[in-house]
Amino acid sequence: MKFSVIGTRPIRHDGADKVTGRALYGADFQMAGLLRGFILRSPHSHARIKRIDTSRAEAFPGVHAVITTKDFPQVDGKKMVDLGEGATPLAYARGNVLASDKVLYRGHAVAAVAAVNAHIAEEAASLIVVEYEVLPCVLTAPGAMQPSAPIIHQDLTTKELGVDTGKVSNIADHIRFSIGDTEAGFAAADLIVEREFNTATVHQGYIEPQNATALWNNDGRISIWCSTQGSFAVRDATAAILDLPVSQIKVTPMEIGGGFGGKINVYLEPVAALLSKKSGRPVKILMPRQAVFEATGPTPGSYMKVKIGAKEDGTITAAQAYLAFEAGAYPGAMVVPGAMTAFACYDLANVLIDGYDVVVNKPSTAAYRAPGAPNSAFAVESVIDELAYKLDIDPIDLRLKNAAKEGTRRADGPKFPRIGCIEVLQAMKNSAHYKSPLTGPNKGRGVALGFWFNIGLPSSCTLNVTADGSVNLIEGSTDIGGSRTSISMQAAEVLGLQAADIHPTIVDTDSIGYTGVTGGSRTTFATGWAAYEAAQDVVRQMKERAAKLWEVSPDSVSAEGGIYKSGAHSIGFKDLASQIADTGGPIVGRAAVNPRGAGGSFAGAIVDVEIDPETGKTTILRFTCVQDAGRAIHPAYVEGQMQGGSVQGIGWALNEEYFMSTDGRMMNSSFLDYRMPTALDVPMIETIIVEVPNPGHPFGVRGVGEANIIPPQAAIANAITHAIGTRLTRLPMNPPAIMEAIWCQKSSSPLS
Amino acid sequence: MKFSVIGTRPIRHDGADKVTGRALYGADFQMAGLLRGFILRSPHSHARIKRIDTSRAEAFPGVHAVITTKDFPQVDGKKMVDLGEGATPLAYARGNVLASDKVLYRGHAVAAVAAVNAHIAEEAASLIVVEYEVLPCVLTAPGAMQPSAPIIHQDLTTKELGVDTGKVSNIADHIRFSIGDTEAGFAAADLIVEREFNTATVHQGYIEPQNATALWNNDGRISIWCSTQGSFAVRDATAAILDLPVSQIKVTPMEIGGGFGGKINVYLEPVAALLSKKSGRPVKILMPRQAVFEATGPTPGSYMKVKIGAKEDGTITAAQAYLAFEAGAYPGAMVVPGAMTAFACYDLANVLIDGYDVVVNKPSTAAYRAPGAPNSAFAVESVIDELAYKLDIDPIDLRLKNAAKEGTRRADGPKFPRIGCIEVLQAMKNSAHYKSPLTGPNKGRGVALGFWFNIGLPSSCTLNVTADGSVNLIEGSTDIGGSRTSISMQAAEVLGLQAADIHPTIVDTDSIGYTGVTGGSRTTFATGWAAYEAAQDVVRQMKERAAKLWEVSPDSVSAEGGIYKSGAHSIGFKDLASQIADTGGPIVGRAAVNPRGAGGSFAGAIVDVEIDPETGKTTILRFTCVQDAGRAIHPAYVEGQMQGGSVQGIGWALNEEYFMSTDGRMMNSSFLDYRMPTALDVPMIETIIVEVPNPGHPFGVRGVGEANIIPPQAAIANAITHAIGTRLTRLPMNPPAIMEAIWCQKSSSPLS
Repeated sequence: MKFSVIGTRPIRHDGADKVTGRALYGADFQMAGLLRGFILRSPHSHARIKRIDTSRAEAFPGVHAVITTKDFPQVDGKKMVDLGEGATPLAYARGNVLASDKVLYRGHAVAAVAAVNAHIAEEAASLIVVEYEVLPCVLTAPGAMQPSAPIIHQDLTTKELGVDTGKVSNIADHIRFSIGDTEAGFAAADLIVEREFNTATVHQGYIEPQNATALWNNDGRISIWCSTQGSFAVRDATAAILDLPVSQIKVTPMEIGGGFGGKINVYLEPVAALLSKKSGRPVKILMPRQAVFEATGPTPGSYMKVKIGAKEDGTITAAQAYLAFEAGAYPGAMVVPGAMTAFACYDLANVLIDGYDVVVNKPSTAAYRAPGAPNSAFAVESVIDELAYKLDIDPIDLRLKNAAKEGTRRADGPKFPRIGCIEVLQAMKNSAHYKSPLTGPNKGRGVALGFWFNIGLPSSCTLNVTADGSVNLIEGSTDIGGSRTSISMQAAEVLGLQAADIHPTIVDTDSIGYTGVTGGSRTTFATGWAAYEAAQDVVRQMKERAAKLWEVSPDSVSAEGGIYKSGAHSIGFKDLASQIADTGGPIVGRAAVNPRGAGGSFAGAIVDVEIDPETGKTTILRFTCVQDAGRAIHPAYVEGQMQGGSVQGIGWALNEEYFMSTDGRMMNSSFLDYRMPTALDVPMIETIIVEVPNPGHPFGVRGVGEANIIPPQAAIANAITHAIGTRLTRLPMNPPAIMEAIWCQKSSSPLS
Repeated sequence: MKFSVIGTRPIRHDGADKVTGRALYGADFQMAGLLRGFILRSPHSHARIKRIDTSRAEAFPGVHAVITTKDFPQVDGKKMVDLGEGATPLAYARGNVLASDKVLYRGHAVAAVAAVNAHIAEEAASLIVVEYEVLPCVLTAPGAMQPSAPIIHQDLTTKELGVDTGKVSNIADHIRFSIGDTEAGFAAADLIVEREFNTATVHQGYIEPQNATALWNNDGRISIWCSTQGSFAVRDATAAILDLPVSQIKVTPMEIGGGFGGKINVYLEPVAALLSKKSGRPVKILMPRQAVFEATGPTPGSYMKVKIGAKEDGTITAAQAYLAFEAGAYPGAMVVPGAMTAFACYDLANVLIDGYDVVVNKPSTAAYRAPGAPNSAFAVESVIDELAYKLDIDPIDLRLKNAAKEGTRRADGPKFPRIGCIEVLQAMKNSAHYKSPLTGPNKGRGVALGFWFNIGLPSSCTLNVTADGSVNLIEGSTDIGGSRTSISMQAAEVLGLQAADIHPTIVDTDSIGYTGVTGGSRTTFATGWAAYEAAQDVVRQMKERAAKLWEVSPDSVSAEGGIYKSGAHSIGFKDLASQIADTGGPIVGRAAVNPRGAGGSFAGAIVDVEIDPETGKTTILRFTCVQDAGRAIHPAYVEGQMQGGSVQGIGWALNEEYFMSTDGRMMNSSFLDYRMPTALDVPMIETIIVEVPNPGHPFGVRGVGEANIIPPQAAIANAITHAIGTRLTRLPMNPPAIMEAIWCQKSSSPLS
């Protein structure tokens, strides 16, 4: 296909607003009579709530409402609700918003106050008396799986391979994916490597804290303004928790200052709504940074064991993984994609993956860019690297030899359609970076590969043609990374217009058809597809108008590149648009899509590091991210996603972690102490976009938001290994960890 | 047709917001960094601007921008622009927003200031020095038509029956409509009545003054928030005046506190936009009430001469009208509908109507509920009454004898389709009011009839089906009189839902297809039609989903009353809606309509008055409004329109007028002095809805916003005539006018 808009780099439609400060984020929302809410949070990581006395807070001057869990509608907590990630008991969804009988992690919301300003709300919240009975806590998956571990949910019984065992435990779920016979596979191997790995709890670290304003109108309709990745997700979750029909709630998405998966779940919205109902006023709640760390969803910490066997020629004969992921305080789902993607890069005959979802006394985990996958890839790609080293095969060649391709069956079931795994590996191998020499002491190069399946979900789009020939595009996908433009470009391509001719607007949940979250790398893919279809709907109508003008049959009218023709007649889109008022009135194009089988994306990382043997500090000398975009609609934004994911992966690898005290207190809950990479910590991330078009999208889009965060951790671990001669198997690989590895090195054989 | 929603009276969707004060009107709009604008206005009704010195205002602390006409883009004023009422020179559109070389009426905007608050803006405006050369003014159409009259526009030449005469004069236009041969018609008459009439300038008197906030963003995109009858009209007019493509402007309609035709033209929006461009900040301007009276568009004052001849049996043989309407400062268009409707109630063989559009030194006129028609109907229906009296025929019978019907050709050309003229007259005659006796001195009963053609224009509508089976309706028609509900009801009727199941939202001009103004009685008609079509689009898709569920052909699925059936299968709308996510994703219905030939509406008034012979005060004893609604979607709102139009007609009849000084100063420019009827001044207005379905609308809607204001003036004039024995031919018929008539009575023969 030859494109005129796709593949170009127009400036983003919201650029001026973003750089001048005009863009309105959740915290900017103002309204007459607005109250401010404050949430009282648990100081304990595990405790029974014996009594809550809100009387002094209620009496405090300036306070309009105080709520606790009792203010929720009294609906049975066993009722299953679907908040977008499958059915979950209402009690869990509700309990994470305001604790009921127990607090399950430090920072767990216990009560909330609405007052005339934020200071009074906070002061009044401090007057709420909560009597706790402190319970022992457990903070890691292996710890929580011990028979002697304190039980977090007395009603939680383990689901074992899909069957409820009835056994009360902290193990919420045990899943298994398998292919072939691993025992036979390992028996056939010439070399087997088996290692254990651990990853820390890390946070998405979005700049903008959670926020929500709610107005519970006296006609029963609720309006919510918030920064979210999914306005419909907020609507549906809030409706479920408040036991209301979804149509009673309207969510207006404000601009969003980062999400990365962490701004899908609701935390504040139902609380703000209840406070508004009780006070009769709109209520705004802004989350302090400490609460963002302590009470929103980080990614699971994990314990993993991976074993891979191979022939001397590099053929992998069997692969096995044991994954125990922390769910946080409530059952999670992140081990599932962790297991789905663990060996997905490879075409394997014998695979066995066991995944455990384990509740611990930490905040309930949430999605974070390809959730679960960076964990398992860190383990798997470390072992692959060790195999390559021991078999003396180039690590990319080893991967190429076993690479997944069209027709490969994944352990979790699906067969791959056309994918770009091999193309990504070849691009890595052919890259200037990989071909460049790396010399000198304390330096090492590492590579790794990652796969993310991407998701579909419904999206809607409406297009209104204006008389001057530009087109207003209405959509419901929160724009985090430039999706207004990448969606508009797809409409422009169909219509034969420029990106600047399309004026995108993201509207509230009442004003557009259902649209899934901005997540799962789906926005440019699915909402872009809706824009494509809506544009086709416009073209169809424009043809009819041209036919009317020329008094010919609509079937005789062709449209290409915005030029409409029939016989000797010819007219451009803009000229035709100027005549729509006289040929039948406005033209509105609309589409709703529900794509299944989004095209998965592969990403590879090449990294050169230098270790300071005196301090253990890792310097990233060079970093290249290679990713299959399917089709790069706006290459600059694709590169931005690749760079962003890479930098986050670097953060996971080298520094980021929830540093927990033994009683479950996060000791570094501020951006001063939670060490994320800054521009000073990383080099320019080089990017190589691979384009293996997704056969399941009209333009071949795959989605590029996530796969790029998967390989950096293992690539850096592999590079460090080659730099210092010892393999680190625990994230983060921070200076103390590296110093410890160097010190221990003398007593162990290198690379064993 | 049998309806389940149409014809019922559900509560309005915006009811709670309106009664609790939650609804946000233009003046409520807030934004960070908002400046306030103030407009300096002319103290003279006609003057040349010799010099404007803004330097002191610009230097005033807190002032961010000062603009005059020089800040408009330098586009030739002769360029013709279409602001929705046909082509007009840009110079006139622009000149009414900010005066150029001359001020043409007192209150004419001359310069504008944006400052940190409204007080500083007003103070700074007072520091602008404007040097005027005061010119003689002319305030009435007959006066301005004199050869000796001061010429208001040196470039305005008279258009005579469509041809530009090249002759500079205050007569902008002379139009003529005719049928047959009036000379022969009058020759055949047994009785001819000819009279002259005058009406005063009156104002719509909406509660909420004009307002506008504009943000000229540094990417060149302009956002406007205002109270308007037509967001697209504001967009298009502002774009024309600022020489921008329409797509560069987004207008968000706020709630509106009355319009009646007066909130279609732009006054403040281009000024606020220019101030925003110059200051780099958003700017809000609120119009003081005095400026609303002095500088927005009232309805034309008029001089009219009407002559009608009839046979003894009541058959009208000829009718002639001479209409000279004040256009205000710039050429207007109100005489055209005045002429179109003058004799439209009657089936006549010989008609001649001459209409003159005459500029005077008053604010440029604007639409006001059936613009032009109340003027001519006052004249025509007074003469008809006199004929009936003199022929000793019941005034309703005389009208019935000559009534227009399907096939009657109007003097302005069109042939009537199915209309309800006769049905309205019969309902009047059969009414309890008309059948009741009226006895006692100083009392009189009058009747009159009026016709309004109503208009079409494009409208768009989008429907989004939610999972709980309610439907979000997106539209672009400002809701003045409950149209959210009357539009939603039409969608509900198609979908088999209740009105409360539809959640209507009125969105900005970027977020919906082009939609014409809320005016011309078109909103329930045209946007309702769009809702009907969009609902049909939803039904079509719902059938496909049901077919998918049942694995049958979509063609086999029927839908009636919200129940979808095929063979033995049956499912309700809400149950089906809960499954759309799994059967193909969101359902979005959309439609855009451009209806031609809206069905005209006839209205009749019956009024009983009692005159206090000591003071001349008129008491309305009883008032009945009869109107053909075609189909009353929401009878309570139809009645509300009928009552509102009747009360405004009573205001015209008895009290309202621009009381002008000889130098063109309105002496009563406040609601204290401009006497509008209050609830204490009028009885409960009785209403009789006639339903003669409009064949040009799927539900038969005609539109009911306007025809009701046409007959009250003449009906009251006729009633007063029968009460005091003398005919008044000048509006308003206030106590001094009535006392004068009573005093003069002795020297004139009664009813001559």
